[in-house]
Amino acid sequence: MKKFINDAETVISDALRGLAAAHPELRVDLEQKIIVRAEGPRPGKVGLVSGGGSGHEPLHGGFVGLGMLDAAVPGEVFTSPVPDQIVAATAAANGGAGVVYIVKNYTGDVMNFQMAAELAADSDIRVETVLVNDDVAVKDSTWTAGRRGTGATVFVEKITGALAERGASLAEVAEIGRRVNAASRSFAVALTACTTPAAGKPGFALPDDEIEVGVGIHGEPGRRREKLQTAKNIVATALDAILSDLPLASGDSTIVMVNGLGGTPLIELYILFGEITATFRDRGIVIARSLVGNYITSLDMAGASITVCKADPQMLESWDAPVRTPGLRWGV
Amino acid sequence: MKKFINDAETVISDALRGLAAAHPELRVDLEQKIIVRAEGPRPGKVGLVSGGGSGHEPLHGGFVGLGMLDAAVPGEVFTSPVPDQIVAATAAANGGAGVVYIVKNYTGDVMNFQMAAELAADSDIRVETVLVNDDVAVKDSTWTAGRRGTGATVFVEKITGALAERGASLAEVAEIGRRVNAASRSFAVALTACTTPAAGKPGFALPDDEIEVGVGIHGEPGRRREKLQTAKNIVATALDAILSDLPLASGDSTIVMVNGLGGTPLIELYILFGEITATFRDRGIVIARSLVGNYITSLDMAGASITVCKADPQMLESWDAPVRTPGLRWGV
Repeated sequence: MKKFINDAETVISDALRGLAAAHPELRVDLEQKIIVRAEGPRPGKVGLVSGGGSGHEPLHGGFVGLGMLDAAVPGEVFTSPVPDQIVAATAAANGGAGVVYIVKNYTGDVMNFQMAAELAADSDIRVETVLVNDDVAVKDSTWTAGRRGTGATVFVEKITGALAERGASLAEVAEIGRRVNAASRSFAVALTACTTPAAGKPGFALPDDEIEVGVGIHGEPGRRREKLQTAKNIVATALDAILSDLPLASGDSTIVMVNGLGGTPLIELYILFGEITATFRDRGIVIARSLVGNYITSLDMAGASITVCKADPQMLESWDAPVRTPGLRWGV
Repeated sequence: MKKFINDAETVISDALRGLAAAHPELRVDLEQKIIVRAEGPRPGKVGLVSGGGSGHEPLHGGFVGLGMLDAAVPGEVFTSPVPDQIVAATAAANGGAGVVYIVKNYTGDVMNFQMAAELAADSDIRVETVLVNDDVAVKDSTWTAGRRGTGATVFVEKITGALAERGASLAEVAEIGRRVNAASRSFAVALTACTTPAAGKPGFALPDDEIEVGVGIHGEPGRRREKLQTAKNIVATALDAILSDLPLASGDSTIVMVNGLGGTPLIELYILFGEITATFRDRGIVIARSLVGNYITSLDMAGASITVCKADPQMLESWDAPVRTPGLRWGV
């Protein structure tokens, strides 16, 4: 294993120290391991908290800021944050109007955010949870009962963040978060496995000419392995999986993300996006907004995921609202 | 080789098609292979043109837009663009006040931009060239006489872009570009080699426990190979090289970039940035602005470069000016 680290034990602390130094608009509590907006919670604003295992950066810490999250809770690499951490983030994000948890569907995350919600209720903080489970690849997975939560998390965080910033209620913010999740589907393909600092070797073995079709963001197995295909064929496979689960008609508007899993050159992500564009054009599906880049990664994995959200006008308008975070920024 | 491509021959065309679809604010001429702002040249504004071999994305095409480049000229992967392409970009960027070329110091780029400048002069377009040669690792290299041009290119493009946007003259824009280059130094370390689509295999062989210290952005050899070090020691090596060439005193202001070469997780880049911050704090050097992420890559290479610019107030103020490009965006 070759990585820019000091010690596998201190990866998260060391990275948080760098994040804090690079982004003075964030406050990083190195003791409790939470990342919050430096200006603190705004009275009357619904707070947004997300988190999960580290290794998916910029998600979630890179999405803290104006128009997106109020707090992020990073666990160790690929390991859920603990309830105490989540409770601390909840308190830091609470402006008195309640807090929405955005939780990717992994058993540990779901359990620990649930415990934190109960502890928050003891402190009279109302919590609503939006569970993200957009990955159509497999029904159950290594750490998940039901579908895994992946790329749609970025869409949910952006769109709920816009509503919360404008003063929407707890119920309204949670509701649009659930609608965005319900309208989104993802599918990922890996060319290589990723290596966690603790393990020191790739999480699975993949022959030199094979790809993992439907891989999870921790390297969980997908639907099958197959020989390397052209970008065009890989996009066809991913879109078949997505569109057979989320039927789209001519004239439908979408937000599309082509996301790199960490080790994939941007030039290849643009090739994938170009193929999606061609397919959607043929079917009359409108790509109203798009993201191409690394947004929810899997350490150094070479691979990419495609996320499609069938977007209504409110979602698109919320998408366009100003956002100022390390990982996503426009309009300000 | 496993990549998301259709054919090694069509990588650039296919990627440009995706770039065009993702960024309607850009106009991508697939025939001539140039990327320009959709709104065209502004009369009286100095035009900024950069380019070079592809494989370093987001550089340069991802830096076309308000407050940065007017046009980018991508060559094939790791191959200089041809003079005709550069001339087409020059014409597209020309608002009548002259055009500045920002050229990384590689022999092919220097030669082809020089030929294009002569052809532009025949069309009565005044051209000034800013040569970027910031890489302190080696004196001469595989494709370079003198120092290689690397990370400082991002600083030069951002800061000249701000001045040009405000109506500075050709001489003023070129002058600050040269000053930024003269005030900047870079140093890179590779953990792995990159693989070009045409070659289909890694550009060099690096044992599992060794790193290339002082690598170039095409995988050119550096100063030496050594055993893998801690992030702290790698930063010490890079900063020794940089600061012995660019002496900084307590109180000096800098812009610092920690740049991923394509295959390095963001979390590791933050670890490196945290180490730089600690060193600079000890020496009283101020990090006034920073970038941590993938800005000038080397396809899928795992590695990172550090760039330090000793920044005067004009540079900092120009750094903060609004920029709206696919790769860098703030203030708008």
